[in-house]
Amino acid sequence: MNSFAYRVVAAVALAAAALAVAAQTNNRDEAKKPLAIASQGAFFVGGETKRSSTPPPAVPGANAAPAPPDDITVNQMYVQYQVPVNAAQHVPVVMVHGCCLSSMTWETTPDGRMGWSEYFVRKNRPVYLADQASRARSGFDATIINAVKQGAAPPSQLPNVLMAGHQTSWAVFRFGATYGSPFPDGQFPIQAVDELYKQMIPDFNSVLPSPNPTWKDMAALAVQLHGAVLMGHSESGFYPEEAAMIDPTGVRGIISIEMGCTTTLKPEQLSTLAKIPILIMFGDHLADVEGRFGTIWPANFDSCQKFVDQVTAAGGDAEMMSLPKMGIKGNSHMLMQDKNNLQLADLILAWIDQHVEGKKTHHH
Amino acid sequence: MNSFAYRVVAAVALAAAALAVAAQTNNRDEAKKPLAIASQGAFFVGGETKRSSTPPPAVPGANAAPAPPDDITVNQMYVQYQVPVNAAQHVPVVMVHGCCLSSMTWETTPDGRMGWSEYFVRKNRPVYLADQASRARSGFDATIINAVKQGAAPPSQLPNVLMAGHQTSWAVFRFGATYGSPFPDGQFPIQAVDELYKQMIPDFNSVLPSPNPTWKDMAALAVQLHGAVLMGHSESGFYPEEAAMIDPTGVRGIISIEMGCTTTLKPEQLSTLAKIPILIMFGDHLADVEGRFGTIWPANFDSCQKFVDQVTAAGGDAEMMSLPKMGIKGNSHMLMQDKNNLQLADLILAWIDQHVEGKKTHHH
Repeated sequence: MNSFAYRVVAAVALAAAALAVAAQTNNRDEAKKPLAIASQGAFFVGGETKRSSTPPPAVPGANAAPAPPDDITVNQMYVQYQVPVNAAQHVPVVMVHGCCLSSMTWETTPDGRMGWSEYFVRKNRPVYLADQASRARSGFDATIINAVKQGAAPPSQLPNVLMAGHQTSWAVFRFGATYGSPFPDGQFPIQAVDELYKQMIPDFNSVLPSPNPTWKDMAALAVQLHGAVLMGHSESGFYPEEAAMIDPTGVRGIISIEMGCTTTLKPEQLSTLAKIPILIMFGDHLADVEGRFGTIWPANFDSCQKFVDQVTAAGGDAEMMSLPKMGIKGNSHMLMQDKNNLQLADLILAWIDQHVEGKKTHHH
Repeated sequence: MNSFAYRVVAAVALAAAALAVAAQTNNRDEAKKPLAIASQGAFFVGGETKRSSTPPPAVPGANAAPAPPDDITVNQMYVQYQVPVNAAQHVPVVMVHGCCLSSMTWETTPDGRMGWSEYFVRKNRPVYLADQASRARSGFDATIINAVKQGAAPPSQLPNVLMAGHQTSWAVFRFGATYGSPFPDGQFPIQAVDELYKQMIPDFNSVLPSPNPTWKDMAALAVQLHGAVLMGHSESGFYPEEAAMIDPTGVRGIISIEMGCTTTLKPEQLSTLAKIPILIMFGDHLADVEGRFGTIWPANFDSCQKFVDQVTAAGGDAEMMSLPKMGIKGNSHMLMQDKNNLQLADLILAWIDQHVEGKKTHHH
C-alpha cells in the first residue's frame, strides 16, 4: 500500500472509530425511546401447489378410513415486516438469513442487544425479514420423509439435511482458531454463544427445485415493494444478485455479507448487475481458523474481490468493504450479532444513503 | 334450557352483537394509528445439548477430511415479543399455535387484516408469540433423517411428519361440509384460503421426547415474565393446562381454544388447575363436516365440557364459551383469522380483565 493510500485508510479508520463511539452512545439512548410503527405484519411471497403423493399419517382423532390424497403448498417465502412512521424518504430493506438459521439472525443478539432489524426501523427504514423458502415459518416439502418411512421410496432419496452444530458453527463463523478458544479481539459476544446455538435449525434447501425459489421470491418482493434493497448473508449472501439476474425491476441496491461469489457470470448478467449499486462486506480473521474450514474464507473473499472487479469493469458501482482494512478488527461471520453490530449497521445505512438514495453524506 | 337461562343467553348475545359493531368500528380507526412499542425482540426458552450421532453431510467448501462429531441444541422454544408503552397495568399474554402451523397463526390474517398479536398489543398487552419446540424458528432434531439416508438407521425410525394439506385443512378447520363448498355463514375469509395453505408447515412433534418440552418451556416463560396468561390453540389448546400442571407458579390464566381436553386428570392435578382461571372457546359447525373428520369436533367439545365440569367441581373458575350458543355464528377452527376475529379478541380481553386481573367490567 502506498503512503497516500495508507493515510486515506488510516483517516477512514479513525473517522469510523469516532463515529462508532458516537453511534453506540446515541444507540443506547435511542433504544430506550418508544418505537413508532406505522404498520407491521406478515405475508407470503410465491408458493406452488403440488399433490402430496404419499398420504400423510392419520391425524389423531380421525376415522380409520384411509386418507385421501392431499394437496400441499410448497416453496413459499414467509416475510415479516415493520414500517416506521417516518419511512417515506427511504427505500425498504429486505434481509435474508444464511444456512441453518432463520430471520432470528437479524433480531435480538444472543446477548440481548438490539439487532439490525429493529435498528434499521429506528433509522426510518421499512424492514422485511424473509425466512428462506424451505426454512422456519416458510415450511418445506416433507413428503419424501413419509414416503421413505412407508417404504414407498428408498432412503437414498432422503434429502441431505444441513445441520451446523456447535463445533461446526464455531469454526465456520470464526469465533476462534480452535473450538472453545475465542480470538482475543473477537467481536462476537462469546459468553452468549449457547444462545446462538439455539438459533441453528435444520436446513432443507436440498429439497428445493433449481433454481432456488427464494431467488424468484426475493425479486418478486422487491417489485411488490416498488423498489427495495436486498440483503443476504452467508448461504444467502449472493441471493440478491441471483434475484436481480432473474428480474432486476425492483432491486434498487444489493448488500452481500460474508459469502462466496460467482465469478463465471455471462456478460449480459454482469451488465444487469452493473446497473445496481452493490456493497459486499467481510469481517476479520478470514485466514485464522484451523482445521477443515480453514481455507473457506480466504477463497470466498477472493471470489468476491474478483466479482467486484468484474462488475466494476462492466461499468457498475460495486464496493468491497473489508472491515479489518478499515481498521475495524475482530468481526466474526455473524457481524450483525457482533458487539459492534450497530457501528456496522451505520456503515451500511450510510452506503444506502449515498449509493442507493443518492444523498450526500458528510462522512464520505 | 329453561326460560330464564334462555333470556340471559339472548341478552348476552344481543350485548355481544352490539359490542361487536362498536368494536369493529373502533378497530378500523385504531388500526390506522401508529403503534407505540416500548420494547420488542426475540429469545429462546429451554433447550438441551446432545451429540449429533451421525455427522452432518459436508458443508460446501470444507476440506475433504471426515467431519468430526458435532453437538446440537434441541427442544428450545423460540419466542418473539412486543411490549406496548402502556402495558404496566396488564398481564402478558403468551400465544402458542397449533398443528402444522407457526406463530404466523396470530399475525396478519390470510386476507390481510390485523391479527390477534397486534390487536392485543394495541390493547396494551405485552404479547409473546412462541413457535412450538420442533417447529419453525425453534428448529427440530433432524439427526435421524441423515442417519437413515446414510444407512445407519432403518426407515422405520423416521418420524411421522404431520402435514395438513388443503383437503385435510378444509375439513379439520371446518370451512365447509365438503371440500370446496364453504358454509354459507362461514366466518373464515375463504377467498384467501390459499394464503392459509402457505402457513401450513411440517409438524415434527413426533421426534420430541415425552413430556413435550414445549409444556415445560411455557411454564418457564410464565415464571420468567413474573406471571402470564397462556393461550393455546388446537394441537396446543391443552398445553397451557399441561404447563400449569408442571409448574403453576407463573400461570395467571389459561385460554384454550378449539381442542380436545384430558378428562382423566388426578385430583391433585385438578386441584392445581382449580386455582387458575380457565377460558375455553369453541366456534361453530362442530358437527357439520362430512367424512373422516366428521366426529372429531363434537367429541372434542364434549371432552372439554366434561373437563370444565371437573375443574368447577374442584372449586375452580372454568368457563366454556361456545360462540354459537352466544349468538355468534359461523366461526371456523381458525377463529383468530375469521372475519369477526377482533370481536372474539374483545371477548377474551374482557374475560382476562375480569377473571385474571380482577377488574369490574360494565358488560359482565
